[in-house]
Amino acid sequence: MGSEKVYHEIEDPGSEGTLRIPHRRVGLSNGSHIDLYDTSGPYTDSSVPIDVHAGLSRSREDWINGREPIKGAVTQLAYAKAGVITPEMRFIAAREGMDPEFVRSEVAIGRAVIPANRRHPESEPMIIGKNFLVKVNANIGNSAVTSSVEEEVDKMVWATRWGADTIMDLSTGKRIHETREWIMRNSPVPVGTVPIYQALEKVNGDPAELTWEIYRDTVIEQAEQGVDYMTVHAGVLLRYVPLTARRVTGIVSRGGSIMAAWCLAHHKESFLYTHFEELCEILRAYDITFSLGDGLRPGSIADANDDAQFAELRTLGELTHIARAHDVQVMIEGPGHVPMHKIAENVRLEEELCGEAPFYTLGPLATDVAPGYDHITSAIGAAQIGWHGTAMLCYVTPKEHLGLPNRTDVKTGVITYKIAAHSADLAKGHPRAQEWDDTLSQARFDFRWQDQFHLALDPETAQSYHDETLPAEPAKTAHFCSMCGPKFCSMKISQDVRKYAEENGLSTVEAIEKGMAEKSAEFAEHGKRVYLPVAE
Amino acid sequence: MGSEKVYHEIEDPGSEGTLRIPHRRVGLSNGSHIDLYDTSGPYTDSSVPIDVHAGLSRSREDWINGREPIKGAVTQLAYAKAGVITPEMRFIAAREGMDPEFVRSEVAIGRAVIPANRRHPESEPMIIGKNFLVKVNANIGNSAVTSSVEEEVDKMVWATRWGADTIMDLSTGKRIHETREWIMRNSPVPVGTVPIYQALEKVNGDPAELTWEIYRDTVIEQAEQGVDYMTVHAGVLLRYVPLTARRVTGIVSRGGSIMAAWCLAHHKESFLYTHFEELCEILRAYDITFSLGDGLRPGSIADANDDAQFAELRTLGELTHIARAHDVQVMIEGPGHVPMHKIAENVRLEEELCGEAPFYTLGPLATDVAPGYDHITSAIGAAQIGWHGTAMLCYVTPKEHLGLPNRTDVKTGVITYKIAAHSADLAKGHPRAQEWDDTLSQARFDFRWQDQFHLALDPETAQSYHDETLPAEPAKTAHFCSMCGPKFCSMKISQDVRKYAEENGLSTVEAIEKGMAEKSAEFAEHGKRVYLPVAE
Repeated sequence: MGSEKVYHEIEDPGSEGTLRIPHRRVGLSNGSHIDLYDTSGPYTDSSVPIDVHAGLSRSREDWINGREPIKGAVTQLAYAKAGVITPEMRFIAAREGMDPEFVRSEVAIGRAVIPANRRHPESEPMIIGKNFLVKVNANIGNSAVTSSVEEEVDKMVWATRWGADTIMDLSTGKRIHETREWIMRNSPVPVGTVPIYQALEKVNGDPAELTWEIYRDTVIEQAEQGVDYMTVHAGVLLRYVPLTARRVTGIVSRGGSIMAAWCLAHHKESFLYTHFEELCEILRAYDITFSLGDGLRPGSIADANDDAQFAELRTLGELTHIARAHDVQVMIEGPGHVPMHKIAENVRLEEELCGEAPFYTLGPLATDVAPGYDHITSAIGAAQIGWHGTAMLCYVTPKEHLGLPNRTDVKTGVITYKIAAHSADLAKGHPRAQEWDDTLSQARFDFRWQDQFHLALDPETAQSYHDETLPAEPAKTAHFCSMCGPKFCSMKISQDVRKYAEENGLSTVEAIEKGMAEKSAEFAEHGKRVYLPVAE
Repeated sequence: MGSEKVYHEIEDPGSEGTLRIPHRRVGLSNGSHIDLYDTSGPYTDSSVPIDVHAGLSRSREDWINGREPIKGAVTQLAYAKAGVITPEMRFIAAREGMDPEFVRSEVAIGRAVIPANRRHPESEPMIIGKNFLVKVNANIGNSAVTSSVEEEVDKMVWATRWGADTIMDLSTGKRIHETREWIMRNSPVPVGTVPIYQALEKVNGDPAELTWEIYRDTVIEQAEQGVDYMTVHAGVLLRYVPLTARRVTGIVSRGGSIMAAWCLAHHKESFLYTHFEELCEILRAYDITFSLGDGLRPGSIADANDDAQFAELRTLGELTHIARAHDVQVMIEGPGHVPMHKIAENVRLEEELCGEAPFYTLGPLATDVAPGYDHITSAIGAAQIGWHGTAMLCYVTPKEHLGLPNRTDVKTGVITYKIAAHSADLAKGHPRAQEWDDTLSQARFDFRWQDQFHLALDPETAQSYHDETLPAEPAKTAHFCSMCGPKFCSMKISQDVRKYAEENGLSTVEAIEKGMAEKSAEFAEHGKRVYLPVAE
């Protein structure tokens, strides 16, 4: 509503082609506009025909096929280390308003990742790292209890429509492969999975029956489909499991508890840990990014920052360095449930132990007492952990702990997390962040109601709330709002203060003060006129 | 839902009577219970007949009439300074789980206030201060555009039902006096007002026509009705107004802009400032608490922490010391719109300049880009500013900037702010805060679904969300939830880990680890049994 798709075209010296960077352009009633970061893909471009059976166009295919491996590796990390700026990096630089060389250097040292499987050429390049815009992931996926394939693809399009930067397909029920295929071929954003979920389906849900071979084959199956990043709970070691026995909420990660059960049943070290280098070789071949899972993350305020959580984090740090040695990109997953005063410690330790690999957290929830509102309890934690350096936030919907999110819940979750991410961008001082706030606030101050709606994260909701109190069309241009009514409005007075200052040619604050001393009588007369109702 | 009103009875040596401290008791299915802080007054006590025309019982009347003034003063501050522990202080100490002497000492040094007009004997004593539970205020009130008296009283009861600790009546339309009278006589929580709003009505909305006499008479009128605290924008000085001229959003406080307009029109210093000591004498006679308003608070991210805001804060500090010298209690209002990295500075400066007077902030919103979701943008800021020391948070509803809140918006606003306040209590380490989280998380881990609903801030919403996915009654006792389905559940595995450890008599983590080495085969067999579906 009130916006259109535009592309910024830039030259790519590497491919000698033109890169088209998508933006959402919000036109303003004063003739200006603002171009915002846009994750929605071709679905919001009315000139692009959509056929979900054919899938999106494979826009990265020529780039992928056109480059030679570096010492056998085809990962963005390998190219970055070799000093090569890929078209993906150049695209991202334009998208974020950064220098391409800076993008390359952040990827090269592992402080940022570009999740982009060679088998997912439909995706638009994006980056995850603390020096870039904070990203938001939306989980979708069917389960044994409910949901259908069509619903899941629709959820993906819907989530990116509202700003999800990546989506994770967490399907656990029937038709996992088919659901994922549809999502991959139609997704303009990177897709993540947790391969252990599908592997578990293959052994009828009994963790003890899992084997490295079954898991490996599942990873390859998903790699071939184009999955861009995979959650791997390789840090859940046998000796850490007992550390959870006296927690209030034990192990709450599904992947973590699957691996814990396997370790206990066999009394062996996790096959994800013992086969980690083989796994690196597979991921390397596709340029899949590791998302090293926090299988022992806390599931309650009581369990935050405990020995089990940090023991696992230390192991994730070891694995990070192994993966990087294989030129595989890595990010690290984080909690969960953490009271505010324990949030910063999570980021500090993660950066220290994992060589500043991008942190990717679930919330965290700042309190446990509000099931039904956990998008809010967790947005409080997410905004703060984002400010402290977390690179991507996994959304939480109002249904967390209670049920599966429907379409409305997905939208609420994404928008809530865009708020948290953008708040973090402002606090971090991202160079492009505040322009959006200032543009909206200026529209608010100028009583440009339609501009204010169009600039909102959720234009429809903003306008509908205004309509509830003041539905008539003239109210959309009125110089007052429903809070104070037409008779008196604080913003109106502020404008009068400014107008008065300008009319009197007072260009500095000192001059204004001086000027007022001489002109107070004049202002009084002026004031009486402008305070009259403007639209009664 | 799932809770009942109980009273903890304690002796009061001062009045030789018994104090009955209200609590909301949540009974649990395992036979235990938890008693939570309760703001809802007699409305949730089925044994108390409610007659809104008669008003609530005047439970503080005997205390008020039974004590002698201290050097002519009848304020809680005067008694506290004199070493007297009032029944109000003893009531509060029991309510907060603190020592009565500590309550007295915090009031005596002005770090906490007890808003309790002698003319509002219906109120239940409560305290606002950084060393106590963070409180939440809900604004209600009609306006020129919409609303009715009956609606406003109902909103007050509704807001306290969900946890509002105080309410502010911000009526600006017709029947202001009558609306307020109904609210006062039926409110179990302190009521705040902004007297300048009603004064402005008396001069037909023209700020230039305001006089000290009209304002003073309005204050006395409201004081007689029992208003417990009053917002007074006495820090908006003539010389500060020009500092706002180049802001993105000028002056956004209604009270602030009224006073700014008056100052400019007359080119005189604000009558609130020049008559401040007379005002102190009036408030002292009733024990009304000053809420010194931040008339120059920022209305956008761009304007946060600017010269205008902090110049006014410095003046509020001067006024705080004047009020205290008159034995009048004081709190300080704060912003508004502030990006996260500028929040802590607000608290630090307020404490330094205003002698640690309780800080009372509106949000702040951490970003401007989400009209329609400003309960969330502001909860992010509110939780953090509460953690840093803000004593009371003024709620923001989803309709902020767009329209007037209806019943649903009021509930959403209050619950969102209870989340922010409780998150802050956890982070501050309030001794009673975490018990609630732990009790709920334990219920969640034990699959005690009904207990989890009953312990939630909003039990109805929690249960209805669960019903959407798993409506059948057996699901309320099932040992799985809708996220993972019946076949596999991480919490179930965690319980098995613990059960196994307990069954094998392994009392320490070290022993568990050792024991597992010996018993892995046994566990495998045990495990295969318990991982079978429990309710398919």
